[in-house]
Amino acid sequence: MDEQAALALIGDRLSAAGDDCAVVDGQVVTTDMLHERTDFPGGTTRYTAGWRAVGASLSDVASMGAEATAAVAVYAAPEFDADELTAFVDGAADVCEAVGAEYVGGDLDGHDEFTVATTALGDTDDPVFRSGASPGDALCVTGTLGRSGAAVWLFERGEVERANDLFRFEPRVRAGVALRQYATAMMDSSDGLARSVHQLCAASDCGADLSGPLPIDDAVDAVADDAEERRELGVFFGEDFELVCTVPEADLEGAREAVPCPLHRIGTVTDGAVTLDGTSLPDRGYSH
Amino acid sequence: MDEQAALALIGDRLSAAGDDCAVVDGQVVTTDMLHERTDFPGGTTRYTAGWRAVGASLSDVASMGAEATAAVAVYAAPEFDADELTAFVDGAADVCEAVGAEYVGGDLDGHDEFTVATTALGDTDDPVFRSGASPGDALCVTGTLGRSGAAVWLFERGEVERANDLFRFEPRVRAGVALRQYATAMMDSSDGLARSVHQLCAASDCGADLSGPLPIDDAVDAVADDAEERRELGVFFGEDFELVCTVPEADLEGAREAVPCPLHRIGTVTDGAVTLDGTSLPDRGYSH
Repeated sequence: MDEQAALALIGDRLSAAGDDCAVVDGQVVTTDMLHERTDFPGGTTRYTAGWRAVGASLSDVASMGAEATAAVAVYAAPEFDADELTAFVDGAADVCEAVGAEYVGGDLDGHDEFTVATTALGDTDDPVFRSGASPGDALCVTGTLGRSGAAVWLFERGEVERANDLFRFEPRVRAGVALRQYATAMMDSSDGLARSVHQLCAASDCGADLSGPLPIDDAVDAVADDAEERRELGVFFGEDFELVCTVPEADLEGAREAVPCPLHRIGTVTDGAVTLDGTSLPDRGYSH
Repeated sequence: MDEQAALALIGDRLSAAGDDCAVVDGQVVTTDMLHERTDFPGGTTRYTAGWRAVGASLSDVASMGAEATAAVAVYAAPEFDADELTAFVDGAADVCEAVGAEYVGGDLDGHDEFTVATTALGDTDDPVFRSGASPGDALCVTGTLGRSGAAVWLFERGEVERANDLFRFEPRVRAGVALRQYATAMMDSSDGLARSVHQLCAASDCGADLSGPLPIDDAVDAVADDAEERRELGVFFGEDFELVCTVPEADLEGAREAVPCPLHRIGTVTDGAVTLDGTSLPDRGYSH
C-alpha cells in the first residue's frame, strides 16, 4: 500500500484526520517525522534541521488559518552531542519565535538514524479546510516555489551555506491567519505545487486551470539547466511550505492587501480536470 | 553526552521543559518516540504498539494531573500494510477511548525501522509538577510494578499473547486527575520506580526512605527466578507507567478514597538520600 492509500485508510477511520491538521475544540494539532536519509541532505546543519522540522509542522498550522501557539519535538540520534543538540534546539526555538509561537521542548531518543518528530499546535475557531473550493474561485499561492529543490541541488554540489539558507523557510502563519477570512480552501505545498493542487481539488471535488508564469524562485533559475529542470524543481519537487489557497474572485484584491507576503494568482478553480497551460498536470510530487 | 545530561541541557534552555509535560496556557503537551529495536520486542502486535505508544504519552498527561483530551501519532515503517496500519490505529484509538481522550490521527513516514512518535494533549489550570515534595510527605505509587518487565521476559520466551496483554496498560489519567488536589509532586514511572523516585526527589530537592513490601505485580512473581530478579523487574526495569506521587500525611486517606485504583504508600519523603529498606537505592533504570 502506498502512502496516499495508507493516509486515505486513516482518514476513513478517524473523522478528525485527513487535512493538514486535526481540529480539536478550537485547536489544531499536527505531527510530522523527518529523517536523515530522506529529509536532511549531507551538509544540513542541526540548526537548520531544528528550524526546518519544526517549521514543517508550523506550516501545517498556517494552512488551517490558525495562530501558531506551541511546538514540541523528539530529537532521535545515535548519540547526543551537546553542540548539535543546542543548535537543533536553537533552530527550533527560532522558527517558533519567527511566527509568534513557543518551542516548549520534547524528548530524546537513541536511534540508528537521525530522526525528528515534531508536533505543532494552533488556535482557531474557524479553520480553513482543503474542501471548500468552488468553480470560479481564484487559485493562489504565497511566496515562491522551488526553494527546497534548489537547496537540495546545492547540497549535492557542496554549496552548503547557501543551501542551508534556502532550507530555512518562514512558515506562513501570518499569511494563513490573514487569509482565514478570504480563503475557501487552503493547504500547504509540502508535497509540491502539482500534488497539492490535486489534493485540494480532490478534497473540494473540483478541478483547476493553472496558467503560467508560475512564481518560481530565483534560486531555481540560478541552478536549473533548462526549462524542464526549472519546472521539475518548481512544480513537482515539493517541500516548499508555501500556502496554496482558493479565494473568491471578488475577494482577491482584499486578500492580497491583507497578506504580508506576495500572493500570486496561478489559476482558476473549475469543474473539470487539473491542467497547466491547457495540458493535464500530473499528480506527482514528494512522497514522504 | 548521555540522555540525562542531554535532557538537562534542554531543560536549561527551555523554561517550559523538564517535567513529564510542557505547560502552555492551561494545557499540557508531551511527545515521545518508540521504536522496534528498543521498545517493541518480537511478537508485539501492531495493535499493542499503537495502544502502548499512545498510552506512554497519555501517561505523561496523567502525571501532570490533567484531563487527557487528544493524541496524534506518526507511524513510520519500511512499508505500509493495511492490516498492520489498521491494527495500530485501532490500538491508538482504543487507549484514547479508555481514558476519555480522542485519537485524531497523525502522519506516515517511510523509515527503515518501525518507529512511532506520539503526542498527547491535556487540560488543567493547576498542573502537578515533580518539584513540590516536602519532607514528611507520604511517597506513593499507583497500581503494581513490573508488568512491562514481566512482559519482555515473556516475549523473549515466545509467550506473546500474555506478553501483549501485559504490554497494554491503562494510562492513569483518572487517578492523576483525582490526585491533583492531594499530590504535592507527581510523575510517571516510565523510567522505573528507582529512577523515577530519584528524579522526583532531585526536582523537589529532597530524599526518600522507601520500605518494602513494594507492590510488585503478580506477573513478576510468576516469571522471576529469585528475589534479585523480582527486584530487578519490579524496581529498575521501568516502562510501567504508574504514577509516583507525594501526598501530605494528613491527606493520604482522602487521596486513597478519591483514586479509582490502588494507591500504595511505599515510603516517606526526607531531607536525606534515597534509600530502600535502609540502604541506598541506586539511580538506575530505563534509558530510552
